Amino acid sequence: MRPDSVRYRAAGRLAQVVVRRAFAEFVGTGLLVTVVIGSGIMAARLSPSDVGLELVENATATAAGLAVIILLVGPVSGAHLNPVVSLVDWALRGRRGGRDLAAYVAAQVTGGIGGAILANLMFALPPITISHHERTGGHLWLGEVVATAGLVALVFALARSGRAHLGPAAIGAYIGAAYWFTSSTSFANPAVTIARTLSDTFTGIKPSSAPMFVLMQLVGAGIAYGLIRLLYPDRVLADR
Amino acid sequence: MRPDSVRYRAAGRLAQVVVRRAFAEFVGTGLLVTVVIGSGIMAARLSPSDVGLELVENATATAAGLAVIILLVGPVSGAHLNPVVSLVDWALRGRRGGRDLAAYVAAQVTGGIGGAILANLMFALPPITISHHERTGGHLWLGEVVATAGLVALVFALARSGRAHLGPAAIGAYIGAAYWFTSSTSFANPAVTIARTLSDTFTGIKPSSAPMFVLMQLVGAGIAYGLIRLLYPDRVLADR
Amino acid sequence: MRPDSVRYRAAGRLAQVVVRRAFAEFVGTGLLVTVVIGSGIMAARLSPSDVGLELVENATATAAGLAVIILLVGPVSGAHLNPVVSLVDWALRGRRGGRDLAAYVAAQVTGGIGGAILANLMFALPPITISHHERTGGHLWLGEVVATAGLVALVFALARSGRAHLGPAAIGAYIGAAYWFTSSTSFANPAVTIARTLSDTFTGIKPSSAPMFVLMQLVGAGIAYGLIRLLYPDRVLADR
Amino acid sequence: MRPDSVRYRAAGRLAQVVVRRAFAEFVGTGLLVTVVIGSGIMAARLSPSDVGLELVENATATAAGLAVIILLVGPVSGAHLNPVVSLVDWALRGRRGGRDLAAYVAAQVTGGIGGAILANLMFALPPITISHHERTGGHLWLGEVVATAGLVALVFALARSGRAHLGPAAIGAYIGAAYWFTSSTSFANPAVTIARTLSDTFTGIKPSSAPMFVLMQLVGAGIAYGLIRLLYPDRVLADR
Repeated sequence: MRPDSVRYRAAGRLAQVVVRRAFAEFVGTGLLVTVVIGSGIMAARLSPSDVGLELVENATATAAGLAVIILLVGPVSGAHLNPVVSLVDWALRGRRGGRDLAAYVAAQVTGGIGGAILANLMFALPPITISHHERTGGHLWLGEVVATAGLVALVFALARSGRAHLGPAAIGAYIGAAYWFTSSTSFANPAVTIARTLSDTFTGIKPSSAPMFVLMQLVGAGIAYGLIRLLYPDRVLADR
Repeated sequence: MRPDSVRYRAAGRLAQVVVRRAFAEFVGTGLLVTVVIGSGIMAARLSPSDVGLELVENATATAAGLAVIILLVGPVSGAHLNPVVSLVDWALRGRRGGRDLAAYVAAQVTGGIGGAILANLMFALPPITISHHERTGGHLWLGEVVATAGLVALVFALARSGRAHLGPAAIGAYIGAAYWFTSSTSFANPAVTIARTLSDTFTGIKPSSAPMFVLMQLVGAGIAYGLIRLLYPDRVLADR
Repeated sequence: MRPDSVRYRAAGRLAQVVVRRAFAEFVGTGLLVTVVIGSGIMAARLSPSDVGLELVENATATAAGLAVIILLVGPVSGAHLNPVVSLVDWALRGRRGGRDLAAYVAAQVTGGIGGAILANLMFALPPITISHHERTGGHLWLGEVVATAGLVALVFALARSGRAHLGPAAIGAYIGAAYWFTSSTSFANPAVTIARTLSDTFTGIKPSSAPMFVLMQLVGAGIAYGLIRLLYPDRVLADR
Repeated sequence: MRPDSVRYRAAGRLAQVVVRRAFAEFVGTGLLVTVVIGSGIMAARLSPSDVGLELVENATATAAGLAVIILLVGPVSGAHLNPVVSLVDWALRGRRGGRDLAAYVAAQVTGGIGGAILANLMFALPPITISHHERTGGHLWLGEVVATAGLVALVFALARSGRAHLGPAAIGAYIGAAYWFTSSTSFANPAVTIARTLSDTFTGIKPSSAPMFVLMQLVGAGIAYGLIRLLYPDRVLADR
């Protein structure tokens, strides 16, 4: 039987770990939004005559930055950086740990907002400017479904086949490609979508366009859940 | 002696595995075509003034997307995603498993068609539009021979030297380069060639140009088969 | 008891090792500056009509070149190539080895100066030309804080989690992204900042702008130190 | 005592292996030249209005293609693909195996010529056209010295520290960067230099400019030899 002092200390240590993991999600999602919005502002300022070149610049920086951020916080929190990733993780783990899920999502959303403010300030803009960039229409919504389904399926295909160490490069590469092959330029992340309403710049999204984007992201996550159950029915295959 | 019920169950499980593998080829080839056509549409819309920049955008997205798709379905089906890869695999394995080959090719071709439709819909186009992009002439055909020979030789050089885990990055990089160093921009895949007749956009190919492309891809695959037999005469060398 | 001759020889060997490590830092930092300044000159000459494209060229070459330089000298010196990395390394190791720190910083600064001269000469410019490129203002300083904090946090997140072998690719990718997502284009290195005052070309910085950049890099390094203590309180986690 | 028939068979097998290795160098160097010249032609045709963008396209395709070619033939021949790499390899191995060195260099030079012809034909040009692109001057020669020294030092830094498996990605990245940070766009390879005299296109070099380029490459290789002896005095350090 452990004396009370040990039990209290263990509980304190556990709480500390949960706080540290949520803090890692806060920092990681914040940096991700800073990368997305910051590189978007830089691209629009430096390459004003070709929107495609702006997207090259924005996509390349995001792909490399995302890979690096996953490396930065991965060992601490798993680097979800995305509420739908946390949600599907929770579902695939048998829906246990709802409080952890809530802590992760809260950290991701607040981190994302912080990241938008940091990006705006770095480029001498007011801390928050509401985006006027309308993004609406069935084809864009289909784009978000595809973008999110692919992202979430990739994350858990790697996890379920013992290849999580490939996550940073693979997920960075995926987003770099998805900026181009989806019509919506692949938001694929509710926390990032909310944060991107707060910068009236290249990567912004009008608040009225955000709810449908988030809804479509949830639909895409549901499709990914089904795909993973079909393609990787077992928890973990052998590492290749 | 196993009772009948066990034998039936084992057969059912095997069938399930074959279906799952074909389904993985269907999903993977579909996504590949979505990436190729989708990023081509995006590139042509956003960078209308420089065809080279459009090809940069299309090639980079395809390279990254292909690598990721191989990661996504590789552990399930081996991620052939290409009838000539399946064909050479079958030949190098001593021409056994003809039914699996047929299932793979059927999944690849139908998946590719599905991917073309999805790409068209994501960009608010009719589900199918027949391409008017004529691609014909001896130098382009030579380009397809070179592109396919290099691709197939690479795939089996990796497999035969215990380096299959490098396939995703290597094959993505190969296609990203081959878009540029071959005159035909490296179709190198009969299923993708067929699918690309169904989108009258940047990456399309006129149906009348497709048969010679497919024929040249088969010639290239034959050359790759010979190269592999010369360079890697043994099934598997030591892993480096 | 070891005879004196052995002790002298051991001391000689140690000195030789310290010299070799400092020499590696000299060569590595020199090459890094050559890559940064050289590719900047090439970019400005070949793409005069789009500053964004120039930064694409400069950032891509720097990212790839930095990764390779870390591979080149990493096993010898650890490839700090940056006084603030050496400084935080010293702090995290309990502030022992001040003489090694001094040798590293001296090698980095002199190497950087050598690299600037080499770049100028390769492009048929005088060995040294003082930059007139003013880089000043609170938002740029914030950019340097963010850039350096991210860089240093990444370096030690990898080191403290048994993933130092990912350093070359990760740090290259980080700098490639940070050129875009920070307003200052991410100098993030006092030795490189000093060297960049010596080339009046694309990547130059006016000497009067340099001190505040270096100060902000120190602030960023301090933030990274705190982040690492919070996220990776233990010296080394298990390798993933 | 082995009977004669066994000895004869063993000698035959050895000869076969030497032929196979030389054949791998022939194929690999040929493909490398095809990638360099082919992507240069494509770039010049598709992006006629910005030389920098042409070099982006050429450099990216070369970097990715080179990495892949090293993977393709590496397990067979070591993928030198470059006479100065073979030369320094011979010097660092104690100058034994002069006949192997000669076979490698012959295979590289003839392979390179074959690759130039293939590239020309793929783009509907005569098999051989002599380049009129003059590349001369002290700053370009200095560029070649730096480019070759860096390349050769990298190759043997990896080999001597048990990291040869990083060669494909590292050497590809190096060349991709060196196209930009050296004034000569980094030929760094006598076989490729000779081959590039045979295509009057973007990446060509006038025959009269080639000898000084080759001489400077030898100088660079000598510097690399010295650097390796200083930084990596032992044959093989521990794998990291």
